[in-house]
Amino acid sequence: MAEPIEFHFDFISPYALPGLVAMERVAAKHGRTLEMHPMMLGVSVPKAMGLPPLLDTPLKGDYLLMDVPRVYEFHGIPFRPALERFLTNPLVPHRLFCWMLGQDRARAQQAARAMLAANWSEGSDVSKLENALPHAVAAGFDETDARAAPDDEAVKQDLKQRIEASIGRGIFGSPTFIVDGEMFWGSDRTHVIDRWLETGGW
Amino acid sequence: MAEPIEFHFDFISPYALPGLVAMERVAAKHGRTLEMHPMMLGVSVPKAMGLPPLLDTPLKGDYLLMDVPRVYEFHGIPFRPALERFLTNPLVPHRLFCWMLGQDRARAQQAARAMLAANWSEGSDVSKLENALPHAVAAGFDETDARAAPDDEAVKQDLKQRIEASIGRGIFGSPTFIVDGEMFWGSDRTHVIDRWLETGGW
Repeated sequence: MAEPIEFHFDFISPYALPGLVAMERVAAKHGRTLEMHPMMLGVSVPKAMGLPPLLDTPLKGDYLLMDVPRVYEFHGIPFRPALERFLTNPLVPHRLFCWMLGQDRARAQQAARAMLAANWSEGSDVSKLENALPHAVAAGFDETDARAAPDDEAVKQDLKQRIEASIGRGIFGSPTFIVDGEMFWGSDRTHVIDRWLETGGW
Repeated sequence: MAEPIEFHFDFISPYALPGLVAMERVAAKHGRTLEMHPMMLGVSVPKAMGLPPLLDTPLKGDYLLMDVPRVYEFHGIPFRPALERFLTNPLVPHRLFCWMLGQDRARAQQAARAMLAANWSEGSDVSKLENALPHAVAAGFDETDARAAPDDEAVKQDLKQRIEASIGRGIFGSPTFIVDGEMFWGSDRTHVIDRWLETGGW
């Protein structure tokens, strides 16, 4: 049984959903499963890399705002972001995801995927608990428990440890894929991963 | 007659040659020509964007050193860089290229492509005039004139103006493609440009 392909993503990353959609196709083609993991650009970019936020970077920020809708269209994904300039605080969905991972990975991933799609394709700001919660409930999690999760100290610590571990593994961007130990950064590399899986790598 | 596809590149960029090779295939498929233009990461990154050099950026620098050989292999291009950590001063080949562009674009591009390939696939450091010059001569330029070009004040000014113009157009990375007015950044976007040309864009 082959190892799952790791998919590391931040809810605030506009490229996470296209990367997930494209990778789902590639993974299915090769009979591989996906394992979703949280990462946080708000930690990796300023703290680990010492860089300003991407959207505040001259030239690159403007390019990104132009490129993102084009990438969604390329992958056939509706583009209707919750916030015009994307930025929001992803702690609520990340903590909810961590809490769900502690219960049941398959259902947690179902809910995380739904939150990501809601934020980027359905204009629903999942940084707000009331918008995030229905996706946890739809995936079969208890509403009262889920509502309490983002304020739970153990859940906060769990997310913190996962983010530190991702930095420790060298993960700085979203999405990042790890395929049999090999790291690939960017939603635009799934065709490379496709050939990597086809050939066994190089 | 369709407009040429613009290819903006820096000789110090490891992704320029794979981008050029991949784009040559896409352009040929669609009956389009390529127009090569100089850009300089040493200006766009620190001065226009206010960022540190990519290789000095924690996590991202290490990823790049691992990613570059993989990209060459993906495109079937030999990877034998002139310098282990890539960095060099590209003023000599850029100025030589500008001087050649003033004489004959087709032959200038032939020489620039040869310099780029020499630096990244043949281990020849073209930041040194003695390594750059043979490619100008092979493309039919006068050796004595070419040798004098990098020290010529008018050539220096020409390069400076071209770099300022590229920044003015929002070009920050290498390679950057401009296809019928649409900008694409990155060697890993040529499959997107392929579909763009096929469908007429979106």
